[in-house]
Amino acid sequence: MRRKFCRFCSEFAATTIKYSGLPLCKKHFVEYLEKRVFKTVKKYRMIQEGERILLGVSGGKDSIALLHILKDLQKELKFEIIPLFIDLGIQLNKYSQLSGEIARKNCEKLGLDLITVKIKNEYGFSLDDVFSKRLKRPICSVCGLIKRYVLNRKAIELSADKVATGHNLNDEASFILQNFINMDIELLSRLSPIQPTFNKLLIGRIKPLFEIYEDEISLYVTFKNLEYIDIACPYAKEASTLQLKNILIQLENIRSGAILTMVRGFHKKLKPILQNKQKIEEEKELTTCKLCGMPTSTEICSFCRLKSKIIKN
Amino acid sequence: MRRKFCRFCSEFAATTIKYSGLPLCKKHFVEYLEKRVFKTVKKYRMIQEGERILLGVSGGKDSIALLHILKDLQKELKFEIIPLFIDLGIQLNKYSQLSGEIARKNCEKLGLDLITVKIKNEYGFSLDDVFSKRLKRPICSVCGLIKRYVLNRKAIELSADKVATGHNLNDEASFILQNFINMDIELLSRLSPIQPTFNKLLIGRIKPLFEIYEDEISLYVTFKNLEYIDIACPYAKEASTLQLKNILIQLENIRSGAILTMVRGFHKKLKPILQNKQKIEEEKELTTCKLCGMPTSTEICSFCRLKSKIIKN
Repeated sequence: MRRKFCRFCSEFAATTIKYSGLPLCKKHFVEYLEKRVFKTVKKYRMIQEGERILLGVSGGKDSIALLHILKDLQKELKFEIIPLFIDLGIQLNKYSQLSGEIARKNCEKLGLDLITVKIKNEYGFSLDDVFSKRLKRPICSVCGLIKRYVLNRKAIELSADKVATGHNLNDEASFILQNFINMDIELLSRLSPIQPTFNKLLIGRIKPLFEIYEDEISLYVTFKNLEYIDIACPYAKEASTLQLKNILIQLENIRSGAILTMVRGFHKKLKPILQNKQKIEEEKELTTCKLCGMPTSTEICSFCRLKSKIIKN
Repeated sequence: MRRKFCRFCSEFAATTIKYSGLPLCKKHFVEYLEKRVFKTVKKYRMIQEGERILLGVSGGKDSIALLHILKDLQKELKFEIIPLFIDLGIQLNKYSQLSGEIARKNCEKLGLDLITVKIKNEYGFSLDDVFSKRLKRPICSVCGLIKRYVLNRKAIELSADKVATGHNLNDEASFILQNFINMDIELLSRLSPIQPTFNKLLIGRIKPLFEIYEDEISLYVTFKNLEYIDIACPYAKEASTLQLKNILIQLENIRSGAILTMVRGFHKKLKPILQNKQKIEEEKELTTCKLCGMPTSTEICSFCRLKSKIIKN
């Protein structure tokens, strides 16, 4: 096979964008990917001038990529980045410790101060404590609950305008497919790459990477030589979403662009129909948790209910 | 591994229903599957007493299974079966000829007269003629159009109340997934295991096997020792739906029952929402084709447009 040249310079192409056939060298791939994220941010009005963006940095490739891309975007758009690392207290493979160090190093390199929330110190329990309780709920789902809670709470405390996370296209697609299989209309109708702030209690969330394929992010961090934690979370083997993601990758292999088409089509065509339906059916009052004051639709929020299960028993 | 016994007798189990764990011998599996189809027919009111049901029999395992199951259902419910074979004129591997012979033999065994429509004789072209024209539209899609047209036309001519086809759960699921990926809301909203007769021109369609897995139908025809055409259509290698079906099988392997959950959930929860939406948007007039008098939303129906492309050029 003849090696292709980059579309934009005389270098050999380091990769070819599969669904468009565009051959690109390392440098131009990095630029191309950043431009696509900028486009997503602008198209969906994810960040406005002057806003304070709390960015969840886990140390994994997605959030590390997003950290660097948002830093670069600051050249064009004035806004503040507040990077936050949640130390979940996973001891195995020194997972939390290593992840935290990588997050800190990346922030230092960019001249940003990393805030760390050690959940054991702030809330009295770690993810290892959760695991040892062998709850019925899958550990990855509990971890998601904790992270959403901490990010929202810190966003309120730090007066952030939005919370940004590194969810990529494959994450979004597997979430859509999962809830499509289970036909969970409520969850489907709530899924969004931009959730506006609600009631000053639920801080708006944005996913600037939601139109970028996971393997494109892998190339980005590799081509830019970025340090990230490349070992999987020791609990992740329980994640059934990994299997669903493999299926999506196979789908993409037989129909190039299928994942992107599905996610875009979902947000553009199906979701508006579902949301319309939901609006009529639910008009749930959002109230505040009696224990922590955070938003909830029940008396005690799900985080506090979890906490009491882990700490009391 | 210890062999299991049939849940209903002292025989060894010949199979285990995966999503429910039910072990069954050959005889009880056959009964179980027939009961499930009867249940589907009743639940969705697919067939009423005294109706004339035109059944498309291709000779493949699905339509052969349906032929035998409907014949058996006649013991409980009085209705008429009119089996119809469409000879598409596929010469390779003597495909059409062999399929027709198998369809006829099965009908003879059940004391039913098979009607054969040779499209070359009735409409002046065969599927081989279509293939040789190398149209842009995939051959499997053209074949689907021809079969739908012929079944509907014959149903009108024979005063049939409904057209039954052997589409199984995997067919239905791959159609749903395909249109979900492409987010074709119109096609999704039209998909149904029971389409009522519209305007006396579009005869109602039923898919009594739509809740039965493809591999269950394979077991059924094997256990009952039924003859069916077990070579694939020579044009089927072009079918992209086969790849999608493989993906669905993998999904089923990691989540037992996923396909059934998805298809049922789709029809129960999502489709009513989509149909509601569609009803408001489309109020297309159905008119009759200037050339053949069959239903169409344009001046000349798609079958006649296809025919003129194949025969004239």
